[in-house]
Amino acid sequence: MRLYRLKRLFVGSPLPTAQARHERLSKRTGLAIFASDNLSSVAYATEEIMRVLVLAGVGALTLSTPISIAIGVVICVVIYSYRQTILAYPQGASDYIVAKDNIGWAAGLVAGSALLIDYTLTVAVSVSAGIAAITSAFPALFPYRVVFGIGAIALIAYGNLRGLRESGRLFALPSYLFIAGFLVLIGTGFTRYALQGPPPAPAAAAAVEPLGALTVFLVLRAFASGAVALTGIEAVADGVQAFKPPEVKNARAVLAILGAIMLTLFIGTTALADLFNIVPREEETVVSQLARGVFGGGLLYYYLQGVSTLILILAANTAFADFPRLAFFMSRDGYLPRQFGNRGDRLVFSNGVVILAVIAASLVVVFDGSTHALIPLYAVGVFTSFTLSQTSMVRRWLRTRPGGWWWRVAVNGSGAATTAVVLLVVAATKFVDGAWIVVLLIGGFILTFIAIRQHYDDVARQLSLEGYAGPSPISHTVLVVVGDLHRGVVRAIQYAQTLSPNAKAVYVELDPERTHRLEEKWGKWGMGVPLIVLTSPYRSLLGPLLEYIDHLQENGNHVVTIVIPEFIPARWWQLGLHNQTALLIKGAMLFRRNVIVTDVPYLLRH
Amino acid sequence: MRLYRLKRLFVGSPLPTAQARHERLSKRTGLAIFASDNLSSVAYATEEIMRVLVLAGVGALTLSTPISIAIGVVICVVIYSYRQTILAYPQGASDYIVAKDNIGWAAGLVAGSALLIDYTLTVAVSVSAGIAAITSAFPALFPYRVVFGIGAIALIAYGNLRGLRESGRLFALPSYLFIAGFLVLIGTGFTRYALQGPPPAPAAAAAVEPLGALTVFLVLRAFASGAVALTGIEAVADGVQAFKPPEVKNARAVLAILGAIMLTLFIGTTALADLFNIVPREEETVVSQLARGVFGGGLLYYYLQGVSTLILILAANTAFADFPRLAFFMSRDGYLPRQFGNRGDRLVFSNGVVILAVIAASLVVVFDGSTHALIPLYAVGVFTSFTLSQTSMVRRWLRTRPGGWWWRVAVNGSGAATTAVVLLVVAATKFVDGAWIVVLLIGGFILTFIAIRQHYDDVARQLSLEGYAGPSPISHTVLVVVGDLHRGVVRAIQYAQTLSPNAKAVYVELDPERTHRLEEKWGKWGMGVPLIVLTSPYRSLLGPLLEYIDHLQENGNHVVTIVIPEFIPARWWQLGLHNQTALLIKGAMLFRRNVIVTDVPYLLRH
Repeated sequence: MRLYRLKRLFVGSPLPTAQARHERLSKRTGLAIFASDNLSSVAYATEEIMRVLVLAGVGALTLSTPISIAIGVVICVVIYSYRQTILAYPQGASDYIVAKDNIGWAAGLVAGSALLIDYTLTVAVSVSAGIAAITSAFPALFPYRVVFGIGAIALIAYGNLRGLRESGRLFALPSYLFIAGFLVLIGTGFTRYALQGPPPAPAAAAAVEPLGALTVFLVLRAFASGAVALTGIEAVADGVQAFKPPEVKNARAVLAILGAIMLTLFIGTTALADLFNIVPREEETVVSQLARGVFGGGLLYYYLQGVSTLILILAANTAFADFPRLAFFMSRDGYLPRQFGNRGDRLVFSNGVVILAVIAASLVVVFDGSTHALIPLYAVGVFTSFTLSQTSMVRRWLRTRPGGWWWRVAVNGSGAATTAVVLLVVAATKFVDGAWIVVLLIGGFILTFIAIRQHYDDVARQLSLEGYAGPSPISHTVLVVVGDLHRGVVRAIQYAQTLSPNAKAVYVELDPERTHRLEEKWGKWGMGVPLIVLTSPYRSLLGPLLEYIDHLQENGNHVVTIVIPEFIPARWWQLGLHNQTALLIKGAMLFRRNVIVTDVPYLLRH
Repeated sequence: MRLYRLKRLFVGSPLPTAQARHERLSKRTGLAIFASDNLSSVAYATEEIMRVLVLAGVGALTLSTPISIAIGVVICVVIYSYRQTILAYPQGASDYIVAKDNIGWAAGLVAGSALLIDYTLTVAVSVSAGIAAITSAFPALFPYRVVFGIGAIALIAYGNLRGLRESGRLFALPSYLFIAGFLVLIGTGFTRYALQGPPPAPAAAAAVEPLGALTVFLVLRAFASGAVALTGIEAVADGVQAFKPPEVKNARAVLAILGAIMLTLFIGTTALADLFNIVPREEETVVSQLARGVFGGGLLYYYLQGVSTLILILAANTAFADFPRLAFFMSRDGYLPRQFGNRGDRLVFSNGVVILAVIAASLVVVFDGSTHALIPLYAVGVFTSFTLSQTSMVRRWLRTRPGGWWWRVAVNGSGAATTAVVLLVVAATKFVDGAWIVVLLIGGFILTFIAIRQHYDDVARQLSLEGYAGPSPISHTVLVVVGDLHRGVVRAIQYAQTLSPNAKAVYVELDPERTHRLEEKWGKWGMGVPLIVLTSPYRSLLGPLLEYIDHLQENGNHVVTIVIPEFIPARWWQLGLHNQTALLIKGAMLFRRNVIVTDVPYLLRH
């Protein structure tokens, strides 16, 4: 009960099932929740493009603006396609479900594992990038980045264990502060540029030596790196049911608004970084350099770093809504353990939340809190699920043929084609950097999902009442295992008698002296139950007991109930002071047919 | 069963109880077993004396021979005293028992905890010193000393889990090889010295700067350091019953022989190190330097290092015989958990062996395999138990007054006085170096022993049938907890009916839809058992169940048996795929009076 009270203090009082409907999001808080994942990539996507281009020298950085515009086009196509998906799946259209329904279970599993990996990486990448925004402003904190990262993940998990509505309130403000901050940055930046012309090239620029030529492959790699700007776009379509009614209309509106904001911020920031001659450096993020250049340090600079951190850390929150929900869908289909389907008493899929937090925190530790090291793993999963989802929609329209189906096929078809091309570019240019890990993981996950599903199917078949003739009649013997004679044992004998009038007591003899003493006392305390003494030359308790049970069960369907008197000490440490005979016997009987072990506890005081 | 076979492969087949008597040691193997602990200190005791003296400069090292002779005198006194103890305690005279019998339980507990600490340190120190002998010969192995140490401890524990006689055979040879090696070293050394005079002072000597003056305190510290040469002497008296009959005569003879060999080797080695102008150095042990000086390297040098390692590592074996035996005595008296009293199926007190191995290995890890760092902890425990044991013998003779009692009092009295003085010297000169830890530990252990004993006494009182009127009559309800309807549940219902004709089924409603479906099937499969549906607004399974049980138990001594259908998957990993409802209910009911939980397993195939 003490543990229970601790849980209450931590996650709040339980919520009744009937309250589930009210835990819904308005457009305003919905945008804040679902925007953070996608928008927050503004804080690092530009830098990822520039980090690749700069390998061909500072001059190549002028390509970053056209590349960001190309990515912007992909964003438009994907958003337009997902607005169609929402229409077709008003109940919430996880790419997993869309792919499973329209292509088949194998495609669904590919999409599902890609998404689970993607959500986990979202948490790790966003948190790492958020901490990087802090350490850019305060370099002294750099050594503590992993600890901060773990703390941030724990905080988000905590918020999510308390329930969705409160998360919405908690997380709405930072998203808007972030949007406002970047709009001010872009506005001020372009104004200053128009009035004062370009600032002098920073000293860092001179120090950069080109490491190679500006090849087509390098440009494609830069594009692939910037494609992380698309991560999180699918979140809205996935979570339609989290919106207040009318869910479909609200979700579609939020998706369109999100797209408009994203294009403005991402292309604006990239173009401005280009105009201000920013060169990516190890020690400070591109956004931090840009903000210093535009605002010249001061309050606005710290504001922008602060809200970047906040939105990045909260971006992880989208994944904390999506991962448990997807795990629930997949567990409902039997591909993941059933436990992911349990709603906790705050109406949250608690197991999913906890598992996601643990894996993401491990990633932060293993990759030492480096955003840049995690990025190559990131985009493969995202674009795999995009491609599968859009292809599924094409198949769906071709099959159902609703009004205007040819237009819908054209929209989703172009979405599928675009994302497939991006997927190929990402996989090809990032393979050796880490994308291969994700490819392997997706394969491994699919095999695991199939094994789990097979097990559940098998269990269902074995337990099915279909064609079951009913259990065959059983006979029954009750045995009390006696090692000594005390109040706990007397009570167990009494209990055994209530179970069966033919109960027997069994004693395994380790020392004839003790047998003698026991037999003497048995007359007074045995309550008429016969005492059977088994000899044990090897001092084993189990051996003779098992033999005796074998003997009882020689002929057919005979059930033996073993009653074990057990005293339960009042304090946990005292458990270690007693031989755990009950546990031992239980373990030995676990896989035996027709043997049931019951321990009769005798509670001790203090 | 697979686990069982693995154990057989590892520790051998079980031995019948009747074989216990034959697992005894001849004088020859007994000497080898009990000698290794004491003799092996020859490999480091000289060095510990010199390491202290050299603080006052190289000139002070000439004091090492007189100090070793003083320690030799203490050895003689202690051995003479213990030969008397054996006469008085032919059944094996652990200092714990001697102190408890003759002074009282408090003195017994002090001796007992001192000894347990001492045995543990014996393992850690001997193994560390043994590895140091190897790394002196092969400096390249130095970085692996901790891993080697753990491996050696595991090996000894393994030998001991297999049983005593085999240990004796396995360990006899190295002890004799060690004795022979040191006799050759001492013989050759003195001969060379007589023929060729002292070798030139080594280059290292010039480099040693005196760090302080040669004070009386420093000489006492050197003496205290050398006193580790007495560790392990008590082992023979402790293990009288391990000898073949006549046990007393054999044990006394072995103790005398051990003393003679020890004096020769220890004083001989120290004197020789003095004559050969050896100066202790960090990188190489004193014995290694001496052997190089005497043999000039070559095969004999490696032989000596090799057998030093062997005997040191096997010295730990004495502790593996003594620790479990002492733990058995103390657990028999209720001061340690009962589990230490269980003989494994190879007739060994397996739990003691395993615990000793784990703690000693941890010490090797924590102290980074350094003998010198562990030594200050070592002698306090040894001399505490010596002093208590000898004082006890004095009190015993004064009480029993056998023939020649005044002579016996004189012998053990001088033993007590000598060891008490050494204890004071050790405690005073080593206190800040680590002896304080042992003083604290002894105190902590004593409090723990008392707490354990009080618990056992209390349990015995609560369970005693003395004055017990017998259990009050009970009424009984059997409840099957049902979450679904499948073959496993049907079987559990059938089982519940064999326990009581009034069995009921309980279903906690989480979803009215499912209740409806269950109720429909109940008619066919419920076997006439009434189904009770409990509502659960908070989706908790336990809450409504507990409430219902409270309701059943409202009036008095009513026992409720909860029957839980449980299916057991065929492979362990599949356990994680099912909700552990049975475990949950068990945990919640553990401390409730009059509730008994029985799970009815349904075994699944593959």
